[in-house]
Amino acid sequence: MSASINLISEYRCFKGTVGFCSHQSATCNSEMKFAVYQPPQAKLQPVPVLYFLSGLTCTEENFTTKAGAQRFAAEYGLMLVAPDTSPRNTGIAGENDDWDFGSGASFYVDATEEPWNQHYQMYSYIVQELPALIAEHFPVKSDKQGIFGHSMGGHGALVCALRNSEIFKSVSALAPIAAPMRCPWGQKAFTNYLGTNENTWRNYDASELVKAAKYNRPILIDQGSADKFLAEQLLPEIFEQACKDVNQPLTLRFHEGYDHSYYFISTFMEDHIRHHAAALCD
Amino acid sequence: MSASINLISEYRCFKGTVGFCSHQSATCNSEMKFAVYQPPQAKLQPVPVLYFLSGLTCTEENFTTKAGAQRFAAEYGLMLVAPDTSPRNTGIAGENDDWDFGSGASFYVDATEEPWNQHYQMYSYIVQELPALIAEHFPVKSDKQGIFGHSMGGHGALVCALRNSEIFKSVSALAPIAAPMRCPWGQKAFTNYLGTNENTWRNYDASELVKAAKYNRPILIDQGSADKFLAEQLLPEIFEQACKDVNQPLTLRFHEGYDHSYYFISTFMEDHIRHHAAALCD
Repeated sequence: MSASINLISEYRCFKGTVGFCSHQSATCNSEMKFAVYQPPQAKLQPVPVLYFLSGLTCTEENFTTKAGAQRFAAEYGLMLVAPDTSPRNTGIAGENDDWDFGSGASFYVDATEEPWNQHYQMYSYIVQELPALIAEHFPVKSDKQGIFGHSMGGHGALVCALRNSEIFKSVSALAPIAAPMRCPWGQKAFTNYLGTNENTWRNYDASELVKAAKYNRPILIDQGSADKFLAEQLLPEIFEQACKDVNQPLTLRFHEGYDHSYYFISTFMEDHIRHHAAALCD
Repeated sequence: MSASINLISEYRCFKGTVGFCSHQSATCNSEMKFAVYQPPQAKLQPVPVLYFLSGLTCTEENFTTKAGAQRFAAEYGLMLVAPDTSPRNTGIAGENDDWDFGSGASFYVDATEEPWNQHYQMYSYIVQELPALIAEHFPVKSDKQGIFGHSMGGHGALVCALRNSEIFKSVSALAPIAAPMRCPWGQKAFTNYLGTNENTWRNYDASELVKAAKYNRPILIDQGSADKFLAEQLLPEIFEQACKDVNQPLTLRFHEGYDHSYYFISTFMEDHIRHHAAALCD
């Protein structure tokens, strides 16, 4: 089965190419967009690929314009793929009403509740459809894939990797929502996407999943100590304790004075690309 | 005389601090905004300061979020100051009607024509008021100032430096409007800000100014070969020829495939910061 993609725009960047693409997603039953950075090495041979999942309200653009990741992707020869954070313009009533639910706020789950289950299948999209699409259209090593993300996307990256260690050989996160079952953002999203049975929520909570995941590779998490969402929404200490309980290797770093913004993300981007390159590049 | 500034927001970034500020400009007779990056070295001692002038439609935010300059400013110990590209909300009729004239399009001149001359005094603002304000409120070495910019801001940087070599000890530009008297953008702006007497335009045209400037320090210009504005609006070859005629040291580099965007700017940001650091840092 072949799927087509539409190249919306393209830009030279650090001797490689940034492309903005759209395609009809079978999984989400809607158009989806993503940005892809092809490093210069990809002109010669297949390269590892690193997915970045963005946070609430973001599109495929935020990471691509603000993170400063292309410099290091070009240095290490990594392809970067940054998908949009949800389906959009699905026609679901109220999809744009909340900034922390619906459009721009998929939480990377496969929704089971009406009407969201008609389109919001972002977990399967990230884990299955998007990697297959990338492998079909871009020169990537499909056995060398990593994933990382920020905030809601840090949650998504941890969940996707912990549940699919055979697909994602490396994972890291910046200020992730690390225990979504226990914070207001996660509870709101899970209730509406997954229903009220909290047992189903555990499939999308990194601090629950890690207990049985046997990921066996080091996880890197960076967190700003001045992040206004830290105490109520992010809860990295819960994930840290869960990792300790099962001997999951974790490096959790707190950085004094840094907040939740891309000024924080860009500061530590080099470290994250190095973390993935160490696992994915020869 | 002391002038106050208002700190709108502040972010930790690469061990330094990004701040967004506003103040009442006496020169422009309006509020003006700027972004400032204080590198970590500025906590210990005064540092050199590098001004970045942005292009058409930009504010103080574009460079600050997209250029990736803070990494290198932190490495070399340079303060970065990125002013907005014009006064705004002045009440001048039609100030927001055009994307290439009025708000976001000052062209960094001191307007002489009504009604623009009431507020659009950006040349004096950049050369005099802003450096004095920065020196009053931030730990900078006032004898170590450089300036660079992009597109309209590249034009502005070249003009400010060529006319004030004692103030700006280093200058560079990315895709500058290098001969504004001879391109539609410049002709439109100069006619409306300065009137129809082209003799007054020469004070704001780098390719004219360089003929008598005796800048005597190397100028760096980077230009994408796939920039859609290159042939009609930017005209770097005219500036190059003018430099040759007077033995002004110039490095003009064309980069295949690069366009006019921040993907181009960010790619060559490191080289520009190094160019200025070589002149400004001990």
